Amino acid sequence: MVRGAVTIILGLDPSLSCTGWGVIRAEGSRLSHIANGQIATDPAAPMPARLDMLYAAVAAVIAAHGPDCAACEEVFVNKNPQSTLKLAQARGAVLAACGGAQLDVREHAARLVKKAVVGTGAADKAQVQAMLRVLLPGVAVAGADATDALAVAIADAHLGHHRQIP
Amino acid sequence: MVRGAVTIILGLDPSLSCTGWGVIRAEGSRLSHIANGQIATDPAAPMPARLDMLYAAVAAVIAAHGPDCAACEEVFVNKNPQSTLKLAQARGAVLAACGGAQLDVREHAARLVKKAVVGTGAADKAQVQAMLRVLLPGVAVAGADATDALAVAIADAHLGHHRQIP
Repeated sequence: MVRGAVTIILGLDPSLSCTGWGVIRAEGSRLSHIANGQIATDPAAPMPARLDMLYAAVAAVIAAHGPDCAACEEVFVNKNPQSTLKLAQARGAVLAACGGAQLDVREHAARLVKKAVVGTGAADKAQVQAMLRVLLPGVAVAGADATDALAVAIADAHLGHHRQIP
Repeated sequence: MVRGAVTIILGLDPSLSCTGWGVIRAEGSRLSHIANGQIATDPAAPMPARLDMLYAAVAAVIAAHGPDCAACEEVFVNKNPQSTLKLAQARGAVLAACGGAQLDVREHAARLVKKAVVGTGAADKAQVQAMLRVLLPGVAVAGADATDALAVAIADAHLGHHRQIP
C-alpha cells in the first residue's frame, strides 16, 4: 500500500456454516468502516449448493464494494479431518470468488491479526470487539464472524509486509 | 436413475494442479462416452486465480454438456495437512461450480469405484484403463485424471443407490 493512497480492503472469515466479511477504507494509517456482514448457509442444503451460496454472496460483496485487495486468516488445520475438509472447501469457494474478480488475497496468522488490532497476540474476542469500536467509530458489527473479518482487514492495513497465499 | 431413462453423468476428479472430468451417457446399463478432459492450473499463479480457473472451467464443461448429475470420489484425507487443504480448496471450487448449475453431486468410495468398473476394489490403474476401453468403446482419454473421472461416472451409473455429499 502506498502511504497516503486510499485502499479498500475486504476482510474474509470463511466457514461453511457462516462466512464473515468486512470492508474498510484505509488512507495511510486512517481507517474507516464501509460495510460488514455474514453469509449463513442452510445446513440442510446439499454441499454444492452451500458452496455456491458462499461463492455467489462473496462475488456480490466484491461487486458492491469494489475492494482493491482481500485478506483472510491463515487456515487453522483442525485435528478433525472432516472439519478441516468442510472449512477448506468453504475457503476454496470463497477464494475462487476473489480470483474471479482478479482480487489478490493475503493471509495473516491469527496471532498477528490480534497483535495488529489489540497490541497482543493473546487478545480474547471481547478485546478484539472493543478495539474494533475504537478503530472503526460507529461500526455496528453483524456478529462474531463479521468481527473476525473486520479484524483481519484492519490487520492487513496495519501490517507493512504481506504474504500471498501459497 | 429410472431404468431405461437416459442420464448424462459428469464424473469429476478434483485436484488443484489438474482436475479430471468425464461425461458419459447412461441408458439403463448401456453406457457411452461423450467427452473427457483435464483442467490444469498454473502452479505459478496465486491460489485464488487457480481456484477461479477450476470453477470457470467446470462451469463451462457443465454448460457445454448439460449433465443431469455429477459424481466424484470420496475425498482422501491426506496425512499432510497442507496437501489436504489444497485438495479440499480445489474440491470446494469445483463443487461450487456444480452447485451454481443446480447439479447434485454424489460421492463414492474409491474402492467401490474400482469394484464397479473392474469388478474388484483392489484393481490397479492399468486395469481401470483397460476396462474403460471396453465399457466406452472408442474412448480417447486425456490422461490419468480424466481416467479417474470417467471411472467415477461409470461407477455412478452402475451403483443402484447413491449418497449425497454430507
